[in-house]
Amino acid sequence: MTTYDVTARNRILRKSQRAHYDADEVYAIVDAALVCHVGYEIDGQPYAMPTLIARDGDTLLLHGASKSRTLLHAGAGNPICVTVTHTDGIVLARSAFNHSINYRSAMIYGTGRLVADPDEKLNALIRFTEKLLPGRWDDTRPMTAQELKATGVVAVEIDGASAKVRTGMPIDEPEDVGLPYWGGIIPVRQRLGDPVADSHVPADMPVPAYLLDYVARSRGE
Amino acid sequence: MTTYDVTARNRILRKSQRAHYDADEVYAIVDAALVCHVGYEIDGQPYAMPTLIARDGDTLLLHGASKSRTLLHAGAGNPICVTVTHTDGIVLARSAFNHSINYRSAMIYGTGRLVADPDEKLNALIRFTEKLLPGRWDDTRPMTAQELKATGVVAVEIDGASAKVRTGMPIDEPEDVGLPYWGGIIPVRQRLGDPVADSHVPADMPVPAYLLDYVARSRGE
Repeated sequence: MTTYDVTARNRILRKSQRAHYDADEVYAIVDAALVCHVGYEIDGQPYAMPTLIARDGDTLLLHGASKSRTLLHAGAGNPICVTVTHTDGIVLARSAFNHSINYRSAMIYGTGRLVADPDEKLNALIRFTEKLLPGRWDDTRPMTAQELKATGVVAVEIDGASAKVRTGMPIDEPEDVGLPYWGGIIPVRQRLGDPVADSHVPADMPVPAYLLDYVARSRGE
Repeated sequence: MTTYDVTARNRILRKSQRAHYDADEVYAIVDAALVCHVGYEIDGQPYAMPTLIARDGDTLLLHGASKSRTLLHAGAGNPICVTVTHTDGIVLARSAFNHSINYRSAMIYGTGRLVADPDEKLNALIRFTEKLLPGRWDDTRPMTAQELKATGVVAVEIDGASAKVRTGMPIDEPEDVGLPYWGGIIPVRQRLGDPVADSHVPADMPVPAYLLDYVARSRGE
């Protein structure tokens, strides 16, 4: 298992008991997310840009229009930070001060390169499609050479990361726990709804089984 | 209604039909979120840092430990980007190329200042607590002077912003719509679960009505 060196860049300074520096934890957080935020700076202006994320082993994948400013900047090897965050609960303590949220976040540092090799690019786009819906790639009209050319992919080599995770109940001051305020959590869950067909789907075409399975699994059914 | 000037910084370059430059749209996206990502750079390293967000009129609010590196950097007036993103659906087109997600995102540019005035700080902390759960502030043990001192608040003056929103069904190539692949969306919803009391809540203490109301409203009940 890969463990990241702890440096000034990735060290969790606050609530360090919530810190994790192993790749397994970071990857689990990344794999559970569709969207990440890419931190970068151009001409003195920082950006936190939302975009889809996928992963191939130890490489993070970003994609977009091949001329996208974000992709060109990230693909040129400039330093970036890729962050994924899940909100898992609202934590209600007796004191306003100890209110919090439960969350899982991963911050990953690295540099990217634009993927030029068509096979490597195609493999990345398979990962993105399969991330949206496992089983989908084989049930779509394949990419044309022109579509492949219009799509940019950046592969991000990870050179440091950390995860920060809060779970569980509020942590009240000992002298507060007897106060007459309700304490506990409100779980926050991301949930898939029932699929909605568009107007081009024939009346006799069933919703694909892999799709229904995925929705059911996401609901813990 | 405030409309932001469109400049090189906030102009949506890709899928510009999804762009919005009015404060109402930006604020609606911010207000629906607990967490934002703050983009900033220190010593050549960009960061996209997740943190809670609140709003007071035209001012964004960030908070954390008063000595937090992020807060001190943002509070010193360095340029930052505050981004909020909601994932609303998985969009399944006939072609892999036209797959997408439905989303609402807002990117806000500005500079922050550390809030020193105790009343202004207290007001900000009320906003954060009420953001977690409307009605909560009046049902907690109030902040002590020491807790107030330990908490840092940064007020961010907005000097530009944009929102980008995708809704609705896949947009397939006209020649693809008759292909034998299912097309449509899988809705993605953030949903509050049933509240879970911690071990200090007496057996005869009911869950507060404002809490149950909030959970019910979040589910559209």
